[in-house]
Amino acid sequence: MPPNQSGTRSILSNMKFSLLILALCSLIAAADPLPSWNHTAPRQAIVAFVEKVTKEGSSDFVPISERIAVFDNDGTLWAEQPMYFQAFFVFDRIKALAPQHPEWKDKEPFASVLRGDMKAALAGGERVLLEMVMATHAGMTTEEFEKSVSHWLITAKHPTTGRPFTEMVYQPMLELLTYLRTNGFKTFIVSGGGIEFMRPWAEKVYGIPPEQIIGSSIKSKYELRDGKPVIVKLPEINFIDDKVGKPVGIHHHIGRRPIFAAGNSDGDFEMLEWTTGGKGARLGMIIHHTDAEREWAYDRESHIGKLIKGLDEAAAKGWTISDMKSDWQTVFAR
Amino acid sequence: MPPNQSGTRSILSNMKFSLLILALCSLIAAADPLPSWNHTAPRQAIVAFVEKVTKEGSSDFVPISERIAVFDNDGTLWAEQPMYFQAFFVFDRIKALAPQHPEWKDKEPFASVLRGDMKAALAGGERVLLEMVMATHAGMTTEEFEKSVSHWLITAKHPTTGRPFTEMVYQPMLELLTYLRTNGFKTFIVSGGGIEFMRPWAEKVYGIPPEQIIGSSIKSKYELRDGKPVIVKLPEINFIDDKVGKPVGIHHHIGRRPIFAAGNSDGDFEMLEWTTGGKGARLGMIIHHTDAEREWAYDRESHIGKLIKGLDEAAAKGWTISDMKSDWQTVFAR
Repeated sequence: MPPNQSGTRSILSNMKFSLLILALCSLIAAADPLPSWNHTAPRQAIVAFVEKVTKEGSSDFVPISERIAVFDNDGTLWAEQPMYFQAFFVFDRIKALAPQHPEWKDKEPFASVLRGDMKAALAGGERVLLEMVMATHAGMTTEEFEKSVSHWLITAKHPTTGRPFTEMVYQPMLELLTYLRTNGFKTFIVSGGGIEFMRPWAEKVYGIPPEQIIGSSIKSKYELRDGKPVIVKLPEINFIDDKVGKPVGIHHHIGRRPIFAAGNSDGDFEMLEWTTGGKGARLGMIIHHTDAEREWAYDRESHIGKLIKGLDEAAAKGWTISDMKSDWQTVFAR
Repeated sequence: MPPNQSGTRSILSNMKFSLLILALCSLIAAADPLPSWNHTAPRQAIVAFVEKVTKEGSSDFVPISERIAVFDNDGTLWAEQPMYFQAFFVFDRIKALAPQHPEWKDKEPFASVLRGDMKAALAGGERVLLEMVMATHAGMTTEEFEKSVSHWLITAKHPTTGRPFTEMVYQPMLELLTYLRTNGFKTFIVSGGGIEFMRPWAEKVYGIPPEQIIGSSIKSKYELRDGKPVIVKLPEINFIDDKVGKPVGIHHHIGRRPIFAAGNSDGDFEMLEWTTGGKGARLGMIIHHTDAEREWAYDRESHIGKLIKGLDEAAAKGWTISDMKSDWQTVFAR
């Protein structure tokens, strides 16, 4: 064999080898459904759980129809600092409507909002937020409300990052939603926030359709306006989808017990307890906000997304804690 | 060419032709998604509607995510005579629990039930039925309730046909549900009956999963019993999914306006009005019980499934009336 031929062969062989390696690498990269999750315990727990429940013939196998996964929204799928994003929406509406409501100047929580003291305005938690929703939305039709949410989201910006709120969603959670759906799961949002506030944008942003969104709500009624059927929002609380309300909301809307649940605050405690308290393989996950640089760091002392019981009991309950700082390679959606 | 060869050819050719016809016939039969619907106006309306909304590029095209179809249950998907099937279930429970409730002897509607006067017991409509549901089910966990429904359905028989209740479902409607789903529709039940009464069996019988069932409900609460999480039924009405309640229930659970609705009584009037009052192609359908031989014949004067407004206004509203006697080749599921 002439030396140059052998050299050519060797080069070709090297090239082939390199190409093979390259192909394998890109295959591995393409096959990784969770590229924003570091190779730490939470990622391993997710993958092990999904492989277990989807493996036919295994004792942990779960039929597709029963692969229900529920996710809290605020602080779990998108950020919630410095306050719930829906609160920015409601506060903007209160300010816009204030001229028609001179009585708000002396009435809480409206007075705090108009003074700019957002922390005081929200001190009462989700119920107070819902009361402000009622005051600012009663009388609107559901179509008008949907339009006002969609319009607000186009123009509103987060006060510290300057990004649209719908961009402040977590990349690892988007990947997790897709990974679960690829494996036959039906993904639901179960939020303390307003059901109608989430529905106009959640399908585009999370791939979760309106009928798979559960949340707090005010009552509404059906009527004819100028002969046209409309559904009108009423100034009356219908349902608070928080804490013990979450399992009840899940049961009412889904009628099945989930096998996967993710949350980030003690408002999600009962949802995780209900989900993981059933028979067979279950996964409960708490997103722990530990990254003050890339996001926010808060838990026990926070005025929003308070997490005490969840941290204290996670180990005993077998729940997985995702530490944003060490477990997430990326935080926000790209 | 020798004559016998030509004869063989001719026989072969005839055989081929027959086989072709046979193949075509079986293809047509296999391709007919609605074999139990006669070739009358309702079938034509259904097919024309589905072809219109699924034809890409057409001005009537509806994306898959918005192809929402809603169906009443009692009298639309299964029979409702001589009384709502859920009433048989509740009456059986009242009789079983009567020894523990001596006060029921003098208290309506329980007294009527115990006297065997079912008509009087149900005179108050769905609200009274729901009150009986509350009285007989409060305190049970949702799991216990589900088991009691499933157990009852195995043994209970319809009083006149002697068939299990879950066999008294309409074959043409099963075909319609499948036809719509094959064309990308998501099918929902929107019933005045109890949401939890339908969920244990509707997936098996109709192919409709629990999370796509909307109905009347009583409240429930989450609690720990012996350290195990349960959801317990409370003696308090949560929601009446009838008449003006149906569009509200649809909005709350689905969050989108359906484009197809089928019902059979004036309890479905607002659901049809809400569905067909939207923009674009819509189909509203009323199942008219006209077949006293194969099923029952009733409308304006019936104590159950009363249909007056629907008949009076269907033409003006553009709704299709399915006359069971002339439009259905088969009534009950085979």
